[in-house]
Amino acid sequence: MRARNLEVVLAEVGRSGPLTRAALAESTGLTKSTVSKLVADLLEAGILAESGVIRAGERGRPGVEVSLSGHRVAALGLEVNVDYLAVCLLDLSRSVRHSVRVERDNRGSRPADVLGELRVLALDAIEKAGELGLTVAGAVLAVSGPVEGGLLHNAPNLGWRDVLAAESLGLPLDVGMDNEANLAALGELWFGTGDPDFLYVSGEIGIGAGLVVDGTLFRGVHGFAGELGHVVVSPKGPPCRCGGHGCLEVYAGQEALLRDVPGGVTELVARLRDGDKRAARACVDAGRALGIALTSAVNLLDLDRIVLGGVFARLFPWISDPVGEAMEARLGKLRRTVPSLAGSRLGGDAATLGAAGQVIQRIIADPGPYVARARAAG
Amino acid sequence: MRARNLEVVLAEVGRSGPLTRAALAESTGLTKSTVSKLVADLLEAGILAESGVIRAGERGRPGVEVSLSGHRVAALGLEVNVDYLAVCLLDLSRSVRHSVRVERDNRGSRPADVLGELRVLALDAIEKAGELGLTVAGAVLAVSGPVEGGLLHNAPNLGWRDVLAAESLGLPLDVGMDNEANLAALGELWFGTGDPDFLYVSGEIGIGAGLVVDGTLFRGVHGFAGELGHVVVSPKGPPCRCGGHGCLEVYAGQEALLRDVPGGVTELVARLRDGDKRAARACVDAGRALGIALTSAVNLLDLDRIVLGGVFARLFPWISDPVGEAMEARLGKLRRTVPSLAGSRLGGDAATLGAAGQVIQRIIADPGPYVARARAAG
Repeated sequence: MRARNLEVVLAEVGRSGPLTRAALAESTGLTKSTVSKLVADLLEAGILAESGVIRAGERGRPGVEVSLSGHRVAALGLEVNVDYLAVCLLDLSRSVRHSVRVERDNRGSRPADVLGELRVLALDAIEKAGELGLTVAGAVLAVSGPVEGGLLHNAPNLGWRDVLAAESLGLPLDVGMDNEANLAALGELWFGTGDPDFLYVSGEIGIGAGLVVDGTLFRGVHGFAGELGHVVVSPKGPPCRCGGHGCLEVYAGQEALLRDVPGGVTELVARLRDGDKRAARACVDAGRALGIALTSAVNLLDLDRIVLGGVFARLFPWISDPVGEAMEARLGKLRRTVPSLAGSRLGGDAATLGAAGQVIQRIIADPGPYVARARAAG
Repeated sequence: MRARNLEVVLAEVGRSGPLTRAALAESTGLTKSTVSKLVADLLEAGILAESGVIRAGERGRPGVEVSLSGHRVAALGLEVNVDYLAVCLLDLSRSVRHSVRVERDNRGSRPADVLGELRVLALDAIEKAGELGLTVAGAVLAVSGPVEGGLLHNAPNLGWRDVLAAESLGLPLDVGMDNEANLAALGELWFGTGDPDFLYVSGEIGIGAGLVVDGTLFRGVHGFAGELGHVVVSPKGPPCRCGGHGCLEVYAGQEALLRDVPGGVTELVARLRDGDKRAARACVDAGRALGIALTSAVNLLDLDRIVLGGVFARLFPWISDPVGEAMEARLGKLRRTVPSLAGSRLGGDAATLGAAGQVIQRIIADPGPYVARARAAG
């Protein structure tokens, strides 16, 4: 009962921002004395903090507001992607306290080498957290492939199969693992526009997607849902690393985008700004293919809102029209409305934000152990 | 509280079959006297019936088992499809008591004409119910297009737009409406193999699908999810009625299957049995296209089990290999397992069974009004 009440109080503070004890009692239906006791425990555990602001209640004495504390507990988001490693440290108030992104071509590399380098970045972040007075409660690792039961099954763009990636980091804390597109979708849910229903498209070397329905990630039977990169665009198209032909990734993955345009994505954006026709053509071709794959996704999933992330967010001004036109031509007659398109404003940080956010979400959903630990220590 | 307990008792009987009052008390955690009172009310309302079987309890006196009654309350499933009308009357024990299917080419027909004919079939079923001592509690209409807020938005294969189809039937009872593939998926869930996770593919003139996850239909934002027929197979393929090009329906809809083979589906099956090469070719072509569209569905939805229904169930022996091979070639490397394929054993009745089943589900979920009515009448 007490554990349940701790959750209820914390969920309410998490959802509705700073609140007085009186307001918390009113919105949760708990008595004021129960709320006071629970809040005292959560303050002691460093999960809540008094914000210092004093509000006159509608009834009774003015009260001090409490909110999620940014002073004691932190969460770590980690990412191995095909061309970079990233780390993000969030405190419980969801402020980014430390963030690192290292470009690194991980194609065909040994898992131990890549994960060893990420381990160094993670340990550095844990040390930084200590200097800030924060204890890291846990970490989640984002990887560019399907994950089940702690195992990264297959990351064709890395050339990895059956890697216990999170475990291999050997960090001195709990490390979960999930697909980067799933975590980026959660990042968009928690740190983006706040819409509870959307498909997040993650454009990296590979292309993934995360479907959020009513504020919840749709995972499928094994957690492999959202493999947009292998939706068929043209069945007799060029071969894909997955073993199929004409998958979306072949037409709109980063390698396809950069095939006729030397340099990286930054150079591509510079050329697009300069009006380079080959660069524009690459975006139109990729955008049309993405529009075709998204048409299939909209028909199957019934979406109203699509958020383009990763590389597609950077290319949004040039890619959104061909994507939208391809969808309009195919969906306009059957559906009442064609889904809206938006570029994610989280840039390349969506997955690490979602990863660290998931740790925070778990703490808020089950604060009991933290409270018990603080009590034992105090 | 009483309403909630009625539901709990009824849900338990619905799930676990005939049960004694003592067994019900044990599994619901309610007292025996509470269970006895609730069961008495449900017996009076004709929702439960005593089965006559007497079981010695593990403890205490032997008891009479109760189960859902097949004697008083019934539900009506109705369907307008492109080439037939259908009606199915179920009692609460989920036995089919009356069922009619009329072939009728509804392409380009006026909604009023088609719905007028279905009205006659429905009224006939209601009369039959009366002769059997059954009161029809409600009906649900299955239609071959997206439904929202009681409106059939668009049924391109019928040529209908924005039709208040259920309302227009003018029946003397509540008539709900939903997409036929959604309802057929529910029919498969309740009357098929009982697996809680699968994609049901409805092959009629059009092709739809219903995704069942953990025993629940996935509907999407508007209830339009599962439009498999308009998943893109080949983006520059032949035009489709939806306004797109190269949709699955163009390759595997009934018209495509029968294009080079004169006659209907029955003739096609006869030719396949005789080893007709053109008929076999039609199945292989349709099956490959279906396999490509299902590959996209599996990548997006993460499925382990696909049930082929409608025409595809009848053609299963000839179509399942090309479907499976197309999926294997594209999914075998990326996923650990390729989804299993099965033919639905419900034939053309899946949608009307799901429609009537939905009425029964609502009664079981909220029996209060029926109990209150019986009390007022008694």
